[in-house]
Amino acid sequence: MSDDREREGDDHYELGENRYGKSRIRLVTVRRGPDRHHVRDLTVNVALEGEFEAAHTHGDNAGVIATDTMKNTVYALARDRLTGGPEAFALELARHFIGYDVCGRAFIDIVEHPWNRVATADGQSPDAFVRSGELSRLASVSIDRSGAIAVTAGVDDLTVLKTTRSAFSGFDRDRFTTLAEVDDRLMATKVRATWGYRPDLAASGALDFDAAWQRATESLLHSFAEHFSRSVQESIWIMGREMMDADASIEWVRMVLPNLHHWMVDLSPFGLDNPGEVFVSTTEPHGLIDATVRRREG
Amino acid sequence: MSDDREREGDDHYELGENRYGKSRIRLVTVRRGPDRHHVRDLTVNVALEGEFEAAHTHGDNAGVIATDTMKNTVYALARDRLTGGPEAFALELARHFIGYDVCGRAFIDIVEHPWNRVATADGQSPDAFVRSGELSRLASVSIDRSGAIAVTAGVDDLTVLKTTRSAFSGFDRDRFTTLAEVDDRLMATKVRATWGYRPDLAASGALDFDAAWQRATESLLHSFAEHFSRSVQESIWIMGREMMDADASIEWVRMVLPNLHHWMVDLSPFGLDNPGEVFVSTTEPHGLIDATVRRREG
Amino acid sequence: MSDDREREGDDHYELGENRYGKSRIRLVTVRRGPDRHHVRDLTVNVALEGEFEAAHTHGDNAGVIATDTMKNTVYALARDRLTGGPEAFALELARHFIGYDVCGRAFIDIVEHPWNRVATADGQSPDAFVRSGELSRLASVSIDRSGAIAVTAGVDDLTVLKTTRSAFSGFDRDRFTTLAEVDDRLMATKVRATWGYRPDLAASGALDFDAAWQRATESLLHSFAEHFSRSVQESIWIMGREMMDADASIEWVRMVLPNLHHWMVDLSPFGLDNPGEVFVSTTEPHGLIDATVRRREG
Amino acid sequence: MSDDREREGDDHYELGENRYGKSRIRLVTVRRGPDRHHVRDLTVNVALEGEFEAAHTHGDNAGVIATDTMKNTVYALARDRLTGGPEAFALELARHFIGYDVCGRAFIDIVEHPWNRVATADGQSPDAFVRSGELSRLASVSIDRSGAIAVTAGVDDLTVLKTTRSAFSGFDRDRFTTLAEVDDRLMATKVRATWGYRPDLAASGALDFDAAWQRATESLLHSFAEHFSRSVQESIWIMGREMMDADASIEWVRMVLPNLHHWMVDLSPFGLDNPGEVFVSTTEPHGLIDATVRRREG
Repeated sequence: MSDDREREGDDHYELGENRYGKSRIRLVTVRRGPDRHHVRDLTVNVALEGEFEAAHTHGDNAGVIATDTMKNTVYALARDRLTGGPEAFALELARHFIGYDVCGRAFIDIVEHPWNRVATADGQSPDAFVRSGELSRLASVSIDRSGAIAVTAGVDDLTVLKTTRSAFSGFDRDRFTTLAEVDDRLMATKVRATWGYRPDLAASGALDFDAAWQRATESLLHSFAEHFSRSVQESIWIMGREMMDADASIEWVRMVLPNLHHWMVDLSPFGLDNPGEVFVSTTEPHGLIDATVRRREG
Repeated sequence: MSDDREREGDDHYELGENRYGKSRIRLVTVRRGPDRHHVRDLTVNVALEGEFEAAHTHGDNAGVIATDTMKNTVYALARDRLTGGPEAFALELARHFIGYDVCGRAFIDIVEHPWNRVATADGQSPDAFVRSGELSRLASVSIDRSGAIAVTAGVDDLTVLKTTRSAFSGFDRDRFTTLAEVDDRLMATKVRATWGYRPDLAASGALDFDAAWQRATESLLHSFAEHFSRSVQESIWIMGREMMDADASIEWVRMVLPNLHHWMVDLSPFGLDNPGEVFVSTTEPHGLIDATVRRREG
Repeated sequence: MSDDREREGDDHYELGENRYGKSRIRLVTVRRGPDRHHVRDLTVNVALEGEFEAAHTHGDNAGVIATDTMKNTVYALARDRLTGGPEAFALELARHFIGYDVCGRAFIDIVEHPWNRVATADGQSPDAFVRSGELSRLASVSIDRSGAIAVTAGVDDLTVLKTTRSAFSGFDRDRFTTLAEVDDRLMATKVRATWGYRPDLAASGALDFDAAWQRATESLLHSFAEHFSRSVQESIWIMGREMMDADASIEWVRMVLPNLHHWMVDLSPFGLDNPGEVFVSTTEPHGLIDATVRRREG
Repeated sequence: MSDDREREGDDHYELGENRYGKSRIRLVTVRRGPDRHHVRDLTVNVALEGEFEAAHTHGDNAGVIATDTMKNTVYALARDRLTGGPEAFALELARHFIGYDVCGRAFIDIVEHPWNRVATADGQSPDAFVRSGELSRLASVSIDRSGAIAVTAGVDDLTVLKTTRSAFSGFDRDRFTTLAEVDDRLMATKVRATWGYRPDLAASGALDFDAAWQRATESLLHSFAEHFSRSVQESIWIMGREMMDADASIEWVRMVLPNLHHWMVDLSPFGLDNPGEVFVSTTEPHGLIDATVRRREG
């Protein structure tokens, strides 16, 4: 290959969709209050779209913001501006990056890993923490040059199980169908749910992101526990609807739910019955149900 | 919650985008030829879009194809029809599923895990294999009811390294920039590349998927080795262009490349120089560059 | 190779240490009480030592217990005998397997994955559960033909952090030392702790395994929160000692603790101070401290 | 807890077995020869045993070598001394650390990740590399104060499959046995094999570690391909014996082999036969066979 990139024939190709940034920026902050410390633990991804054609087609880096600079920016802004929910910090970051002339759209994705205080003999530790592995909290913001903002929140890796009030029957049967119909099964899934806030509320600072996230997550768990499920599809509909019933600031809810099958073990070869007590837990293969529930317009 | 799902207020919500299917169907086939065996090792994902609203909103499973049935179908069709590239098998599967009346679009994603024959004292074993961890081969097909077909191929988890002919300089500098400019650095990435074939060729059976994949992958690796890179962005442009130069059936190439930074170790505290010889290999954080190169229309 | 395995020269080799079994048996049980359900989620490993020489050296499987049989046994015994702590179930299994004539020693390792009830509007769900990712509970039993029993319990994957009362100074300095001494640092680790119960108590059924495990884990966490650490080594000593102070049935405590370094970010290039507030969380490389504290004999 | 660690009652406890060090030191070296570059990619673990009691029991770090210093040492010594096999580098490191007065025994474990040159149109690239995922190479050295040395080598993550010449029959049958006997099955495993070299040879520098590793790995693969297996146990015996037949410097071979079951799919519900062609590949649960074959003494 010639060092001269202005090859004959280059006009045959063009740059399509593109974005770039820094991923997996691991950030922990400690706020040292008079009585106790506060810990935050985030993994931040930054991505930008914009006028980056010359970088691709001519190796011209003049307008390129180094991804190392993005990482530095996350740490520097965390010094003073990581004070509210991850959504608020993502907004700060997105607004910073959209300030670059070359930047057409900035995307910030944050995964927050919750920590709890260690319980001690006489209460809660002021400065010792245990990482909750129950779930991760998600926050995403995108901003474009027109000022259009999208703010989503979510939960990930929230593994839940219903031991009853779940059925699956009445489905299509054809020559490849062997699955039996069941009116009482185990339903287990690892929830990834995201939801979108009304952009005007989210951008204005009027929304209490922590309270909204708490309300949405509780609503999700309550409705998971309480509903009768005739399919994972129906469960998404029911849970999403309840989450929006509980919070007018949510415009849509999307869930991507693996169906983590638990197969009842046939104990009859060993002279034993199995009245829904002993199961094999599996992860592979799994059903995967992806659906969005939204407010009806008009 | 009442058992009657026809709640007052349900008309406030509607179902948005949705799809479902079976993921991580692990399939190994052995063809027992007279002289030697042939092994294939695939992970197959099936997903369907279609008229599944009643399943969500009314728990009505009448039109639902159980994901267990999808799994059975993959194994059953593998019996006779997994004879060519994974793209061809994905086409078989997609055409099967689009045959259901309720199905609006079928998506098949296949990851093929290559195995090599074990080298023996006198050649290659007819029936012993070693799994190549160098890369995975990707194939995806979608078909909708109108018959519109998209066939893509790709490679994943292909980790490559250039020890020279890579630079990064001339980039934007602002108050958060500390990265030094370098005219000779290590560039390492784990390639995920996908490319789209001309639908007419791909659907007709005229395309030799194995030969095309081999050509594209070789072209990718050759151009990775031979070009001088002024950024990961430029590398994508150069490699994508070369891949399309080599094969007229490819319409676009997309690469998602992490920049797996290798930091030169400062050995001066130990009285040693480091002329580009000793590095720390890192994975977190990493740059992430995502770009598509395509043929210019018209 | 000849089919006759009685090769000349076989007397040059002999079988050394060996064991075999079934690993990662995934077991979920549901006990359906009148008011509420109870869920258990275990991963069980079985391994046997014994008279298995002929299986290795002559392909003679006459005395081999198939690992599939081990798996079946775990599910079958779970039907009625998984009623107490995982240590008790491991004892049941070990006693079963040592009953085979060929078996010289049976090892059972169990990882229990705790689930919590989903909180609902009016209390706790009777039949919906969320998986706690905070830690795993460990239980191991070995029994040999002489009847000698070892029972250990433990926790794994318990990630904890102290934001103060941790220091590291006064260590050896030589030509390869660059680490600064610090009198206040973050200390984070992912605890893997195991402890051994007095065999007579553990075997007799007199020990309440659940209460003992709870006491040990609380003691570990309390002492983690409350002590001043001059090194991870000292922390293990202090925590182990407290755990044995709290429970006379524990004979020794072993901890394997990675030191998950949190590096303070230098914000001075950006005109900012960093009074112990902003950190990079890392996992690679990590210190790894492995130590056992035990009761002094005599 | 009091700041004075000299608690009453401390004489009830004592320090048992302990070691500490630095794990997952990621090291890449580039040797820039006149014609082409050479890449090495290692993950190094260092661990020390010794007189570290005061560090545990009194927080006295005077004799503690910081794990950060260990990391620095690995990078510094890599500058000039990483020229042969990983065993030779591990020997260099172990000899360095045993030089500390407090050190009673030094352990070095190295995983080497092989890279291949990228194939180019006209040969092999001088400076572009692709990571082979086929296996990892293992090397371990321990040295104690008496000068006793142990050097082991190995392979890990080498996934292999035999499509015939593997059987499993004649095993014990009891009330929990349901497995059918088979005279032709798939046998797949992910090999972790380690072997010990004669210490005198290994320590003297007389052993060509690269040639010995190559010979052992080839011998392992050849015998895997060629033998008829009546069980995984027998396979270990046969392969280990062949490896020692091929190399007099090897004293013992240990293999830890999961039995990665491939279950034949029952296609009869779909009106299809399955003459050993279509399989489900599984990883959980798996058999796990761990055995050592050694030279018979005397």
